Order: sequence, then structure tokens, then C-alpha cells
Amino acid sequence: MNQKFKKISVIGLGLIGTSILHAMTANKDEEVTTFAYDINPKHRNTVLNMQIATFVCDNIHDAISEADLIILSIPVGSMKTVASVISSSLKDGAVVTDTGSTKSSVINDVYPFIPKNVFFIPSHPLAGTEYSGPKSGFSSLFENRYWLIISNKQTDQTKRLANFFSNLGSIVETVSAEYHDKILAITSHLPHLIAYTIVGTASDLEADLKNDVIKFSASGFRDFTRIAASDPIMWRDIFLNNSEAVLEMLQRFNEDLSDLQKAIRKKEGEKLHTFFSRTRSIRKKIIEAGQH
Amino acid sequence: MNQKFKKISVIGLGLIGTSILHAMTANKDEEVTTFAYDINPKHRNTVLNMQIATFVCDNIHDAISEADLIILSIPVGSMKTVASVISSSLKDGAVVTDTGSTKSSVINDVYPFIPKNVFFIPSHPLAGTEYSGPKSGFSSLFENRYWLIISNKQTDQTKRLANFFSNLGSIVETVSAEYHDKILAITSHLPHLIAYTIVGTASDLEADLKNDVIKFSASGFRDFTRIAASDPIMWRDIFLNNSEAVLEMLQRFNEDLSDLQKAIRKKEGEKLHTFFSRTRSIRKKIIEAGQH
Repeated sequence: MNQKFKKISVIGLGLIGTSILHAMTANKDEEVTTFAYDINPKHRNTVLNMQIATFVCDNIHDAISEADLIILSIPVGSMKTVASVISSSLKDGAVVTDTGSTKSSVINDVYPFIPKNVFFIPSHPLAGTEYSGPKSGFSSLFENRYWLIISNKQTDQTKRLANFFSNLGSIVETVSAEYHDKILAITSHLPHLIAYTIVGTASDLEADLKNDVIKFSASGFRDFTRIAASDPIMWRDIFLNNSEAVLEMLQRFNEDLSDLQKAIRKKEGEKLHTFFSRTRSIRKKIIEAGQH
Repeated sequence: MNQKFKKISVIGLGLIGTSILHAMTANKDEEVTTFAYDINPKHRNTVLNMQIATFVCDNIHDAISEADLIILSIPVGSMKTVASVISSSLKDGAVVTDTGSTKSSVINDVYPFIPKNVFFIPSHPLAGTEYSGPKSGFSSLFENRYWLIISNKQTDQTKRLANFFSNLGSIVETVSAEYHDKILAITSHLPHLIAYTIVGTASDLEADLKNDVIKFSASGFRDFTRIAASDPIMWRDIFLNNSEAVLEMLQRFNEDLSDLQKAIRKKEGEKLHTFFSRTRSIRKKIIEAGQH
């Protein structure tokens, strides 16, 4: 039962989808056949020219019908539509997974369209860059990065999927959807929201100041502009689909920011120093965990 | 008149001070003598062992009295005290500069202690890392980074100082103190405040969640923890000494964040998409400006 996937379909040819294809190509497993599809014909053509898929299909049903593993690497806002479209083409015994950054919403959107003899196991690779599109992928994107499988129990199919992700270079862990969405809200979604905000604030400054902000862009802001250069559609969908956890974390953040704002206004040096000191230990732990 | 500085005193042996000494050492100019001092005897000893200064002085007056250029690379909260201490030891015709991240406050704190025949020209290198202390410096820190001189006019002494900073690898520009403080508030001070806040918010999470936030720390948060690992004393002083500009920028930021928060709550996808799209162009300009 724990046999490897031999016919693999990648739906959505952006950073994640093409990186999966690159990584599989690098593995040079001749038993594996890959099917690639994107709704954008230009992206399909780009992937065709890169020669990283066995077949680039012009029709989503052709890309799905033979596959024993289907990976939906599309914005989370498109999951429902795509799931409804592919539903009738899924092969008995096939495994469907996705790579979206919000999990409760994807489960709600996709699960109703999964036929009886098909397994739906959501997942999320904690890997990415600020670049997007079919040319942004590369084979080592997942190396030593966590790939989270959303499941409440280990089954033959989750083990099979974990094995597949391991072969792409990932460290696989299993968590619940709700827990995943909370963790991602604070580690990824809120930081992106804030980076987008501050870069937006800067871009509203008077023209002279704005130009010099760009010119003299110091460390700190530079990092924020990189984060805020990420794909706008992907991020719109994330905030719409993990709004509850994001708004909860945002509320906590706002309370903390208010405290610091008050400390600055009241010139409470000791309070600022204490706050700035304790955040150092978190960085230290992250470096120790090897995820920096 | 536009002659080079031959006796140079570096007061404060942290990241900036030792990087200046490293860069001068790398320049191998035998006509130059350097004097190094730090209030912390351990730091003096570290620098002595690194052999990057001609003299490491145990007394601040010995480090100052012969110098024709004195560089105060200390936290901005210490400027007033140090200026009052060195005032009587400054040589006629000497130039005093500093490397602090807030300029109006440094001018207010230092200027009253500058004797009649001494020139005080504040400055600020837009360079740094999240590391601090005498072992964190390196000779290329200032290469291709802006070094801002605070002056309303060009004089023989500002040219002399600009020439010195250029020889350390910097691109020198002249701006006013008030303008500097506004630019730094948005490009550096506010991003640091926010990074400190969000890492603090994460460290207040329940124990399980907090540990997994560290473990699964994704891009975005990882960058924030790096920023929030910066020297707490330096940053306490910056917020106390540029509070006006920081609070102004923070107010604008809060308004923008409220707007986005509302858009998430109301599920206004179009508004989010528009906001996330326009920030991309700022990143593009920064990359074009070569300061990424």
C-alpha cells in the first residue's frame, strides 16, 4: 500500500508548482510521469520550453485523469472552483493535496468535491521567495524546509505523501488545520500584512521625502519592501481565507504596539529596554533551530 | 585647508567604531595614527588584541587630546555625557563627528559643549547589521553605503570629512538634521519598532504555540526576528531621541493598518489586491537604486 506515486499532476505553475517539477526532474526517477497544467496558456508554454514536465496539458482533465497524485499549487481563492472542475475526472484511489497557506478554508472549499474513493490530504510547504510565476521556481526550494501535512491521524496515504515530500528535500510534520492557521497567522500572514502596510505608508509620503526614502532605504525598510513585493493575488486570498486567525493576532499586535507607542511618548526608557531585550532570545532559538 | 586627517580618535568600540578602525587598517595609510577608547575595559582589551588601532587608551582624554578628528560612535543617549567629558580636551581646529541614528537630539546634546575653535559636524552612516559589540565590526561595512553629513552648507571642514568617509568606501551626501530624522523614522526606526513588537507578540503566545512558531518560523517572521535582535540600548536611545518623527510616522502607519484591518474584516478583496499591488513598485525602485 505504501507505494510511491508514479503519475503526478501539478495544477498551477507558479513558484511552488514549478519548483515541485524542478525538484522531481532533478530526482531523475524514470518511473515517474508528470502532468502539468495552468489556466494561463503563457505559463504552460513557459513550462513546456523549460522541459520540466513529461506532459504539459492544454486541458485540465487530461492533466488529472490518469494521475495517482494531484497537487493543487494555486492561490487559495481558486481552490473551490478548481476542485469543482476536476471532481469528475479524479481516478479511483488518487490522492489530492494542495500547497495553500490557509488550511481550514481549503478544506471547506475542496472537501465537498472529493469523490468517495479519492483521498484529500491538505498540505503546506513552508518555503517561498518574494518572486512569483513559472520562471521563479527552482529545484532546491524545499530543501530542509518544513512541509506540513494536515491530518488528525497517520494513514497509509499520509505516509505515502510524506515520503513524496521527503524526496523533494522537505522535513515533514503533521498538524491540525486550526493549529496550522494560527501558527501561519503570526509567522507569515501578519508579518506580510505589516510589511505591506509600512511600504504603503512610505509610498504615501510627499514626493521629495518618498524619493529619498527609496534612495536612502536603510536596513529594516529594505527587508520590508522585499516581503511586500510578494504576489498580490496570493496574499489577497490568504487574508480573505484566514481572516479570523489574522485578525486575532493583529489585535494582540496592536495592543503591544500601543504599549510601545505610549512608552515612547512618555519617554519610558527602562520599559523600552526591557522589551527590546527579550526579543533577542527568540532570534537565538530560531538560529539554534536551523531555520534562519 | 582640505588636508586629510592624520590623528583620528574613535570613541565607542561597537559595530560602527570597530568597523571604522578595520576599514582604516585595511587602507594601510602609514601617515594615519588612530586612538581608540571605550568605557568598557573588556571592549578596549578586545580591540587591543585585534590590533586595529595604533593606540587603545585607558583614559578618554588621552584618546582625544592629540586628535584632529574625533568620531563618537556611541549610543545617542550617551552623547551629552561624553561631549561634556571631552569638551576641555579637544584640540584647537579639531573636527568632531558622531555616527548616531538621530541627529536633532545629538546636535542639541553635543553642540553646547563644543569649544569655539572646534568644528562639530554630525553624520550618520546608513550601514549596520543586527550584531553588536567590538567583535561584530568588519572593514567593508561602509562599502557603497550612504554616509550622511548633517550640514546646511559645504565648508572646507565638511569636504574634509566627506573625503574621509569616501575613503572608508561610502557614498557621501549632505542633508539637514530635521530631514534626516524624518527619513530615518520611516526607513529604519519604525520598521525596527514594528519588528520588535511582532516578535514580542509572538513571545507572549501560549507555550506550545510559541515553540512551534519558533520551529516553523516562516519567511517574514524570520526577517523580523533578525531585525529585532539588534542592540537594545542603541534602540532604546533612538526611540527616546527621535520620538517626534517616529510618533508621526507611527500615526500614519496605524491609519493604514486600520484600513487594511477593516478590509480583511469586511472581506474586501479588491481593496486588498490594489494595496498589495502598488507596494511592488517601491521594491523595484529600490533594486534599481542598487541599495537592496
